[in-house]
Amino acid sequence: MKIYEMKIAPNPRRVRIFLAEKEIDNIEFVQMDLQKGENLSEEFRKKSPLTKVPVLELDDGQCICETLAICRYFEERFPEKSLMGKSPLEKANIEMWQRWVELYFFLPTGMCFQHTSGYFKDRMNPIKAWGEECHSQVTKFMTFMNRHLATRDYLAGDAFSIADITALCAMDFNRVNDISISDDQPHLKRWYQLVSSRPSAKA
Amino acid sequence: MKIYEMKIAPNPRRVRIFLAEKEIDNIEFVQMDLQKGENLSEEFRKKSPLTKVPVLELDDGQCICETLAICRYFEERFPEKSLMGKSPLEKANIEMWQRWVELYFFLPTGMCFQHTSGYFKDRMNPIKAWGEECHSQVTKFMTFMNRHLATRDYLAGDAFSIADITALCAMDFNRVNDISISDDQPHLKRWYQLVSSRPSAKA
Repeated sequence: MKIYEMKIAPNPRRVRIFLAEKEIDNIEFVQMDLQKGENLSEEFRKKSPLTKVPVLELDDGQCICETLAICRYFEERFPEKSLMGKSPLEKANIEMWQRWVELYFFLPTGMCFQHTSGYFKDRMNPIKAWGEECHSQVTKFMTFMNRHLATRDYLAGDAFSIADITALCAMDFNRVNDISISDDQPHLKRWYQLVSSRPSAKA
Repeated sequence: MKIYEMKIAPNPRRVRIFLAEKEIDNIEFVQMDLQKGENLSEEFRKKSPLTKVPVLELDDGQCICETLAICRYFEERFPEKSLMGKSPLEKANIEMWQRWVELYFFLPTGMCFQHTSGYFKDRMNPIKAWGEECHSQVTKFMTFMNRHLATRDYLAGDAFSIADITALCAMDFNRVNDISISDDQPHLKRWYQLVSSRPSAKA
């Protein structure tokens, strides 16, 4: 199996952390330079029609795009060390949190960067006012997480899950948006230290 | 079990179609008027801290928010008539398509409406240029779906799935954005007629 990715991008890191937690280490990683547009070639579009990374290529050539779909594939094939829950209720609760984090923290984090930095300005239409609105969505969600984490260690349920992975990757990527945890967010800070100190965070 | 929803909103419809396909009909539906702000009460925030609908309330009072998390709960409890796939590869492929449709079609459909119509302008910051950008993302994704559907009946694999549900609900909701399938999109039109004619589409 191969994964096409770009090491510094936040979505590929979600997959690498997921795999590290599951101790799956027989994957070949192929680096792509997105800023140079290596993902826009005809050949890569056959693997990833929307030109995004990461992409998982199976040994028979079939490709799975989208971070969560790649994680789902590994979770279903290797259910030990579950990161997406076991019972229907656990799975639903983790998916709820994974989606909250993704829709209201991870996505605005990425859009804040794209719409204010001009990083991809050769291939998108940056709208500064939207980037600024995303900035405020990100800080609002951090307030929400801080409150939630006052009474628990992890975002969803009692154990580390894919929701924590998504949140950690968004939190770290917010460096590019000049957003960090403030001193009046002690619970978020404690959670951040806890999840950052797992060996998988280095992946 | 109870579901809090607003009948005309597109996310609750995704859940209703999902339940209709699975022939689950023992749920009580509670209507909320979002424009009047009924979802902003302290009482409702206990069920749905981000004030969104739909919300599934279990008989013991536990609540699951987020459309996909609610669908996951029912898929896991009642795996017959699967809408999210059975094998790891099927599950991953359906999740990939469900996410493509959601991120690049359903979400921009909703944001186009919100940022150009002023519907929620008392509680959000509408940015017209972003609404217009979303409009163009929506029509671009329709071109992509039309091409993909040239050689198959459904979006993900050989059977109707949750990816088709998300796409159908976005397609119909695009009425509010004045976006419809054009005559040079015959494959998308055929798919639309196929999925719209299922009894569940009336849900």
